[in-house]
Amino acid sequence: MSDWLPSLQTATPQEGFELAILLARKGVGYTQPSEDVRKKLRPVYEENADSLTLASQVIATHFQTVAAANNYWK
Amino acid sequence: MSDWLPSLQTATPQEGFELAILLARKGVGYTQPSEDVRKKLRPVYEENADSLTLASQVIATHFQTVAAANNYWK
Amino acid sequence: MSDWLPSLQTATPQEGFELAILLARKGVGYTQPSEDVRKKLRPVYEENADSLTLASQVIATHFQTVAAANNYWK
Amino acid sequence: MSDWLPSLQTATPQEGFELAILLARKGVGYTQPSEDVRKKLRPVYEENADSLTLASQVIATHFQTVAAANNYWK
Amino acid sequence: MSDWLPSLQTATPQEGFELAILLARKGVGYTQPSEDVRKKLRPVYEENADSLTLASQVIATHFQTVAAANNYWK
Amino acid sequence: MSDWLPSLQTATPQEGFELAILLARKGVGYTQPSEDVRKKLRPVYEENADSLTLASQVIATHFQTVAAANNYWK
Repeated sequence: MSDWLPSLQTATPQEGFELAILLARKGVGYTQPSEDVRKKLRPVYEENADSLTLASQVIATHFQTVAAANNYWK
Repeated sequence: MSDWLPSLQTATPQEGFELAILLARKGVGYTQPSEDVRKKLRPVYEENADSLTLASQVIATHFQTVAAANNYWK
Repeated sequence: MSDWLPSLQTATPQEGFELAILLARKGVGYTQPSEDVRKKLRPVYEENADSLTLASQVIATHFQTVAAANNYWK
Repeated sequence: MSDWLPSLQTATPQEGFELAILLARKGVGYTQPSEDVRKKLRPVYEENADSLTLASQVIATHFQTVAAANNYWK
Repeated sequence: MSDWLPSLQTATPQEGFELAILLARKGVGYTQPSEDVRKKLRPVYEENADSLTLASQVIATHFQTVAAANNYWK
Repeated sequence: MSDWLPSLQTATPQEGFELAILLARKGVGYTQPSEDVRKKLRPVYEENADSLTLASQVIATHFQTVAAANNYWK
């Protein structure tokens, strides 16, 4: 994997949220390295309410980490 | 995405809870950007007890973050 | 929504646990605002072991937040 | 409900773990107040591996709270 | 139950991880005290990918607690 | 098990993320020690969207721990 995570610091909460999304997707990417397979799966979870909620839960856990890392952008 | 998350600070715990709901929904929105698809899915999870509980779990995780960010509104 | 969450402070751990239950239920309430639908769903999850455990998990996450907010009632 | 949670303080980590179990069960108890229904459900989750793991997850979240409340019994 | 959890302190992170596994299993053990039933269930979750991931999630939550208890073995 | 976890300290957030992945996999490895069985299960979860999201959730919980252990690499 290239150097994709140099820091947890972000300028704004929104950037922090978008970093949390990247972290959530990287967790999937490291587990299933094939982009083709991931693309094939997208329509499965994109149109499933519980799958989308589970994805949002992973983002929430990472956002908790990133927010603490940035002292909540106070 | 527009500038939707300028800060985690809220005046009251209730506003903090409502921000947590926004964060939970944005996690779904970034994962499934199509509002039409999301609208189509609403009746599926809105009438399913476990789906509603999963949604409440995501809100709980975000509320934990927002509450810490606001020093629990002490 | 009315002003239902003025503070996270409670006098005792038990009141804190009961506030966590309120928070968990409000997460469902904001997601499914119709009380009729929620009433219709009650028998579904009330008699399902895993649904009850999932509900207890949401309460546990909120209780973690409320306990920290009250410095663990030390 | 009677006064069942006067404090989060316990003398030992094991007592803290057993308090976490009580909290997890109370989350179910407040959601399904009928002891008869809860007894009826016991054989369902007691003999299901994933149900037991979900129950252990709720205990883990509460134990995290109780451990922090007791400064990890240092 | 015997005195199985005298302390959360461990000499190394690996011992801390193994304590987290013990805690996760004790959560199941307190919920299903019968070793025979637990043995009967082992082949069910041992050969199911999602069951193994759920078990790993419980360990992750307990490891978070044990790591904090040991100030991350700094 | 060999000495696989001497420390939680890592030089960069990315190394911390990769340590979180190792921790998540070790949680599965301790629960199902047979590498043959784990290999047999790989195609099952590798091609299932929700299984991949659950795996990403375990990584997110461990990353939260590792990030705190490294004071967020500030």
